Amino acid sequence: MDEFRDIEPLLRAGDGFDLGAVDTASTPGFEHGGKHGKKQGQAALAEGAVELADLQEKLYAGGLDGDQRRVLLVLQAMDTAGKGGIVGHVVGSVNPYGVHIAAFKAPTDEEKAHDFLWRIRKQLPAAGMLGVFDRSHYEDVLVHRVRHFSTPEEIEARYGIINDFEKEITDAGTTVIKVMLHISPAEQKSRLEARLDDPTKHWKFNPGDLNDRSLWPGFMEAYQIAITRTSADAAPWYVIPADHKWYARLAVQQLLIDALMRFGQDWPAADFDVAEQKARLAAE
Amino acid sequence: MDEFRDIEPLLRAGDGFDLGAVDTASTPGFEHGGKHGKKQGQAALAEGAVELADLQEKLYAGGLDGDQRRVLLVLQAMDTAGKGGIVGHVVGSVNPYGVHIAAFKAPTDEEKAHDFLWRIRKQLPAAGMLGVFDRSHYEDVLVHRVRHFSTPEEIEARYGIINDFEKEITDAGTTVIKVMLHISPAEQKSRLEARLDDPTKHWKFNPGDLNDRSLWPGFMEAYQIAITRTSADAAPWYVIPADHKWYARLAVQQLLIDALMRFGQDWPAADFDVAEQKARLAAE
Repeated sequence: MDEFRDIEPLLRAGDGFDLGAVDTASTPGFEHGGKHGKKQGQAALAEGAVELADLQEKLYAGGLDGDQRRVLLVLQAMDTAGKGGIVGHVVGSVNPYGVHIAAFKAPTDEEKAHDFLWRIRKQLPAAGMLGVFDRSHYEDVLVHRVRHFSTPEEIEARYGIINDFEKEITDAGTTVIKVMLHISPAEQKSRLEARLDDPTKHWKFNPGDLNDRSLWPGFMEAYQIAITRTSADAAPWYVIPADHKWYARLAVQQLLIDALMRFGQDWPAADFDVAEQKARLAAE
Repeated sequence: MDEFRDIEPLLRAGDGFDLGAVDTASTPGFEHGGKHGKKQGQAALAEGAVELADLQEKLYAGGLDGDQRRVLLVLQAMDTAGKGGIVGHVVGSVNPYGVHIAAFKAPTDEEKAHDFLWRIRKQLPAAGMLGVFDRSHYEDVLVHRVRHFSTPEEIEARYGIINDFEKEITDAGTTVIKVMLHISPAEQKSRLEARLDDPTKHWKFNPGDLNDRSLWPGFMEAYQIAITRTSADAAPWYVIPADHKWYARLAVQQLLIDALMRFGQDWPAADFDVAEQKARLAAE
């Protein structure tokens, strides 16, 4: 899949980013060379899974060897956009030992009694780990903005606090990859209908999802502002068209592969005398 | 793979269990009907992965719905016996959201300052989760016995403490599946040689592994005693011949599938009015 490499600049929310201009049904970087479509996308995903698992094992081995690097994948999205599928189909292909997943739901009373980053800091990945945040500290500038859970002044202050926080953790060795999975309201409607039509999916449905849905424009505005204010070079945002599930999975997988390839890690060298240990074993 | 169902009684360490009588190269329950061998075993594993993932998602959904049941898989073994492969190839096939893995290494100073179950309790799986312990509280009666890290009186007391602890958590809804992956010293030698011969595997080798190896009979005695003293009906031990990696993986997968099938869980019913929500969505 070499021709699919470097979708990073295609998906990155840079200067002048306009969320409204993103086509949620598009498949950036996956249109040339006849490699278009779901079937090829799924084949590419299977191929990438092997590569990602290998790279992640090197990251993990490096962590045991003192390398301080780690990766944090932050997933934000409207309901049904596919966060769960990313965890299951992309993150699920690497060895579970090397993964730390944290899902942030409505904060508990204890969490509310602390600053909004308190519960976040506790879930940061250790060296060598791939951390995944299913929702994150961005809820505190997204839903809080839309639903007025915090004052405008509090929310305004949080963009700077978030930038400082993310700079702190990237300086300490964390590669932060922030992803918004972006679907259209029509696609969400179709997915919600499918959940309601299938009794084996009812447990995934929450009437509150329809409340959020009715505030769609407000959420998009909040995403636009959050992305604009916090897409730093060190911790960029990627807005991934997600009407096609196969594309969104492939894109996130490639972002992870790209990040780990840039690390250029090899297997750690032995910190013992290999010949001596071989002789010990042979001499039994 | 119906003919492979119910290996549970074949692998369970019941009354009069004798570790020395277990053939580490055997494949109990997988010898009849021409279904013998690695290739068929791997095919069965792929088939079981789909089934396990489905059952585990029902467990997870049930947990969200208030069902208190959960599963704890305890893995104990000599080095290279394949704990990592179980996590990667068996546990790795279910959705990572529903899995909590804890690896217990040599205790920290803080952990040593508490009773031996303190760090264990903190890692127990929540309702709906599949917990996996890579090593466990059994280290405190295994390596502690062999290396005299604790007095005989302390170790003697721990068997009873462990039985009480496991009864407490099973009463509270945890199905405890304790697995010893059992390899021969010759098989371990061959695996250690392979690690030493492959620079991409050196990070997995620790010269301390050879120290443990030299105490093999002592470890086997400690396992025999621990299994005899703590294989309660509510929290049984399974000793799985593990010279064949494919067999050990398949056996653990089947134990998990059997346990979840006994739960007999279905998808939770909707806790909202489906028709009302459909109408709300349609009326937009």
